[in-house]
Amino acid sequence: MAITGIMRPGFIQIRVLDMPAAIEFYTKRIGLHQVTEGPDGRVYLKSADEFDHHSIVLRRADSAGVDAAGFKCVKDSDLDHYEKRVTDYGFAVDHVKAGEQPGLGRRIGFTIPTGHRIELYAESEQSDPKPRTHNPDVWELEPHGMAARRFDHSLLYGPDVQGNLDFFEKALDFRCAERVDMPDGVFAIWMTCGMKAHDIAFVKYPEPNKLHHVAFELENWQSIGHAADILTRYDISIDLGPTRHGITRGQTIYFFDPSGNRCETFAGGYTYYPDIPTRTWDETQVGKGIFYYERQLNDAFLSVVS
Amino acid sequence: MAITGIMRPGFIQIRVLDMPAAIEFYTKRIGLHQVTEGPDGRVYLKSADEFDHHSIVLRRADSAGVDAAGFKCVKDSDLDHYEKRVTDYGFAVDHVKAGEQPGLGRRIGFTIPTGHRIELYAESEQSDPKPRTHNPDVWELEPHGMAARRFDHSLLYGPDVQGNLDFFEKALDFRCAERVDMPDGVFAIWMTCGMKAHDIAFVKYPEPNKLHHVAFELENWQSIGHAADILTRYDISIDLGPTRHGITRGQTIYFFDPSGNRCETFAGGYTYYPDIPTRTWDETQVGKGIFYYERQLNDAFLSVVS
Amino acid sequence: MAITGIMRPGFIQIRVLDMPAAIEFYTKRIGLHQVTEGPDGRVYLKSADEFDHHSIVLRRADSAGVDAAGFKCVKDSDLDHYEKRVTDYGFAVDHVKAGEQPGLGRRIGFTIPTGHRIELYAESEQSDPKPRTHNPDVWELEPHGMAARRFDHSLLYGPDVQGNLDFFEKALDFRCAERVDMPDGVFAIWMTCGMKAHDIAFVKYPEPNKLHHVAFELENWQSIGHAADILTRYDISIDLGPTRHGITRGQTIYFFDPSGNRCETFAGGYTYYPDIPTRTWDETQVGKGIFYYERQLNDAFLSVVS
Amino acid sequence: MAITGIMRPGFIQIRVLDMPAAIEFYTKRIGLHQVTEGPDGRVYLKSADEFDHHSIVLRRADSAGVDAAGFKCVKDSDLDHYEKRVTDYGFAVDHVKAGEQPGLGRRIGFTIPTGHRIELYAESEQSDPKPRTHNPDVWELEPHGMAARRFDHSLLYGPDVQGNLDFFEKALDFRCAERVDMPDGVFAIWMTCGMKAHDIAFVKYPEPNKLHHVAFELENWQSIGHAADILTRYDISIDLGPTRHGITRGQTIYFFDPSGNRCETFAGGYTYYPDIPTRTWDETQVGKGIFYYERQLNDAFLSVVS
Repeated sequence: MAITGIMRPGFIQIRVLDMPAAIEFYTKRIGLHQVTEGPDGRVYLKSADEFDHHSIVLRRADSAGVDAAGFKCVKDSDLDHYEKRVTDYGFAVDHVKAGEQPGLGRRIGFTIPTGHRIELYAESEQSDPKPRTHNPDVWELEPHGMAARRFDHSLLYGPDVQGNLDFFEKALDFRCAERVDMPDGVFAIWMTCGMKAHDIAFVKYPEPNKLHHVAFELENWQSIGHAADILTRYDISIDLGPTRHGITRGQTIYFFDPSGNRCETFAGGYTYYPDIPTRTWDETQVGKGIFYYERQLNDAFLSVVS
Repeated sequence: MAITGIMRPGFIQIRVLDMPAAIEFYTKRIGLHQVTEGPDGRVYLKSADEFDHHSIVLRRADSAGVDAAGFKCVKDSDLDHYEKRVTDYGFAVDHVKAGEQPGLGRRIGFTIPTGHRIELYAESEQSDPKPRTHNPDVWELEPHGMAARRFDHSLLYGPDVQGNLDFFEKALDFRCAERVDMPDGVFAIWMTCGMKAHDIAFVKYPEPNKLHHVAFELENWQSIGHAADILTRYDISIDLGPTRHGITRGQTIYFFDPSGNRCETFAGGYTYYPDIPTRTWDETQVGKGIFYYERQLNDAFLSVVS
Repeated sequence: MAITGIMRPGFIQIRVLDMPAAIEFYTKRIGLHQVTEGPDGRVYLKSADEFDHHSIVLRRADSAGVDAAGFKCVKDSDLDHYEKRVTDYGFAVDHVKAGEQPGLGRRIGFTIPTGHRIELYAESEQSDPKPRTHNPDVWELEPHGMAARRFDHSLLYGPDVQGNLDFFEKALDFRCAERVDMPDGVFAIWMTCGMKAHDIAFVKYPEPNKLHHVAFELENWQSIGHAADILTRYDISIDLGPTRHGITRGQTIYFFDPSGNRCETFAGGYTYYPDIPTRTWDETQVGKGIFYYERQLNDAFLSVVS
Repeated sequence: MAITGIMRPGFIQIRVLDMPAAIEFYTKRIGLHQVTEGPDGRVYLKSADEFDHHSIVLRRADSAGVDAAGFKCVKDSDLDHYEKRVTDYGFAVDHVKAGEQPGLGRRIGFTIPTGHRIELYAESEQSDPKPRTHNPDVWELEPHGMAARRFDHSLLYGPDVQGNLDFFEKALDFRCAERVDMPDGVFAIWMTCGMKAHDIAFVKYPEPNKLHHVAFELENWQSIGHAADILTRYDISIDLGPTRHGITRGQTIYFFDPSGNRCETFAGGYTYYPDIPTRTWDETQVGKGIFYYERQLNDAFLSVVS
């Protein structure tokens, strides 16, 4: 297919309360590598299986949560294209200069109806460690910790999910792979810009701009089990899992970083194509949709965010 | 991303010598379902996890091999678009009427430099079994046999691989995820039209229009092991595996259907994006590229085709 | 080693409220085979990987629960040996004639301090399906459902766990692989007669002769995940899991048969030898011992028995 | 059961040509830990999941191969018992003083019909790392490399396999779980002293006292795949696999340490009990028995030993 425009979730910038604890957690437990620390103290991380400069940005702050979710576009002119699309849609667009995050080119940013900041960019330097491209091994560096292969997606909470659905479809060319419809309207949406079952998801919540979780892709259910062993061994707080989502079919654990940001290890999930019908869920089965084995929501899913 | 044009491998039509034996093999062992038999005796099969009418077409003939590899496009007008692109490239395009394969809309077809027939189409009815789309379970029908989740890709052999590379990139918008370069030129290419590491691949071979294998996606390495147990239990001839490909990283077994067509069960494989560099292999490491654990080609890989 | 005396859990006889529902559950979901139905209506089941005549006995009754747990000894004279040991210990022993369960030889029986009936026997006919012994395949019959490989163990609830510990060690030559000690005494014990981390386990409970669960061995964590998919697909009530036990390290799901008897699918678990120290747990970590990922007991674990 | 006498394979002492290369291989790749180096330069290794002082002994020598296979007995008096049994059988027994290997008590030794030295001992100190026994985690030290959980068994080559069979059954209380019978007599035997499908195995070979392989237990097929990734990544020579044995059902890879000693990673394998019939294989299916997927022996299996 001709792949154009927004390619994938490229980075997420999250706030942490204790930077050394966060670095230990994301490098030793999740299995990422630290690429660099910026002059303002932000720390940049990546999986050894990612080519781009970084995918996780940690910012020291007094409250946990998300600063911005960045999506990478195919080419620089896509930024102009989407700036016009977003502006035409009625949202303000601002500009971030190349280098504001080390290794990244210029970005455009805007606020979506749930109150979150989304950024688009097209240029990233590559950084080490990364896969070799000539006669490569399956991996160069032996995977460690949970062996996360990539930053996969985020799930964000905010009030106007219907607004996000409309905006992501009309202005950003995303598609809705799955949705939960409650009697009072859309409750949650799983949006994809490619062939993954979701690249970003939103759940309805009274407060805007909340982070539910940042997800890392693992290889398979066996890896999910190993991640669970790590979580208990190092006394890391598990929210739920190992389990499966009915929605996306992903195999999962929810747990918390030392600052209280929820993380997910995610494996599986079906392959999406634009001709796949949107899967819909209603209030009678939403529990099974979210937690396929438990078949009911836990309180924390609905209420604990950062 | 904006997904346009050619989406994915949609079907492959292969020739079999003994139709009942083929049906038993593809339904009971590979784990597909028979959708229907056409008036001309062709038999149409699919995985229960595929929505479209069928993905495998079996045609009774006196020699095994491949008739055509069909790719599904996003919309009908894509056929006009690619007809022009292919014609402009200098290749003749013919037309197949809707319904020539049950459930499929009109197709266009053309012959590529390795001598194979490629077809494009945009319309397919859905057939049962298929996933539910409202409050769906992970599966409706318990998977059976090797539990193939989809027809994944084909690997075809023919003389002018360089010609295919040029054509698929320029006329069909495919990208080359990996390639093997021998001292006398390109030896093999893995081409993708989406986010899979390959949707079709070609290896250089003196005779045109040869089939190396038809691949079915399984869930993971555990599934590959179960497939191997099935192969030995039912005395099905294994070519090689279980092993891994260095190229695409896929976990794999090669084996033969009752007519001598090579099949592959394939799991894993990295996620491709258009900004991922083409991985290249040279003659010193081609063995490791093809069979990562054995690190050398076997004779059958290079010589046994149908 | 010289293996003598009591070899392994051989059968368990449980009570079910609805025999057709129970048969469907244990054959189609757990993956057993029905061997025969006795003249008194009891139904005998086994895994295709077990040689002996049966391992699960279902008896139609008005309340769920366990009638007896049977252990197989190496040779017939072991029954005389253990009859003397048990009698010397001070417990009454009764005799069950050969054929009372089809295919089994004579049994001796006695009541243990928690109020459960334990039986010993040495002779069992073999029944089909069973593994071949000349040039065997890994399996003859393709595994189905959860693909249980054997009846693995039972966990029983009753008041005098300390009494059981003493009796199983002194009269039956079992060893205690793990134990939970509460401030008021031993709370739970995992007893082994061989190299599995447990062959029978007991937890303290006010009422005697209660069944906590009957466990079936699956291959690995991947099989546990598949079992969970089956449980939700067929709306079978899950108690907890997939998770892991800290005690035994087993990977597990607890769920209920149609009569309310709790079942477990169990995989993993370490290899025990007589020189391995008894692992001990105290009240501060008992939650982690039972449910390693959740790190706390759920109410059902302590209160729901049959 | 009453477990008496010989419990399990306790250690194997092998000869290596390059000690630093051997240490790197067994610690970084296989995943063992070095416990200590003795005053004579022998190096002692173990898995972090083993309690005993060591299970692998490396001795620097000019040729690779095996010095002795040690089996651990339940209690010290078992040594006297087996000394009498072996002497009565007609074989000479010698004595090794406590401390000859650090941490081990006294040993008795004798030469078996295939020319190998077998030793028995009953006392071993524990060494770190080892599992905790109070409120233990599933593991204390994160597994690394291939994550070997224990030294599992050895396969030895020599001329008089029939003699070994008779001796191990009559003098050492082992049982034969599987055997291959060729037209000219027994070709290979898999002997167990407990509930594993084999604790030691022998294959007929013209020269005495040869080592075919030393096996390490991994968790499952997924672990076998990861081990294969490690082997190729570090350019370690693979003999065959990943594959499965028909005999024992074990999932396996054969590969070579830097001195040319063949190693195996082994997972799965059925549970053996004394009432399980000996599985037999004949010359028509021996290939499938050894390599279940390939269904034929490779040359190296029959000829490459150390």
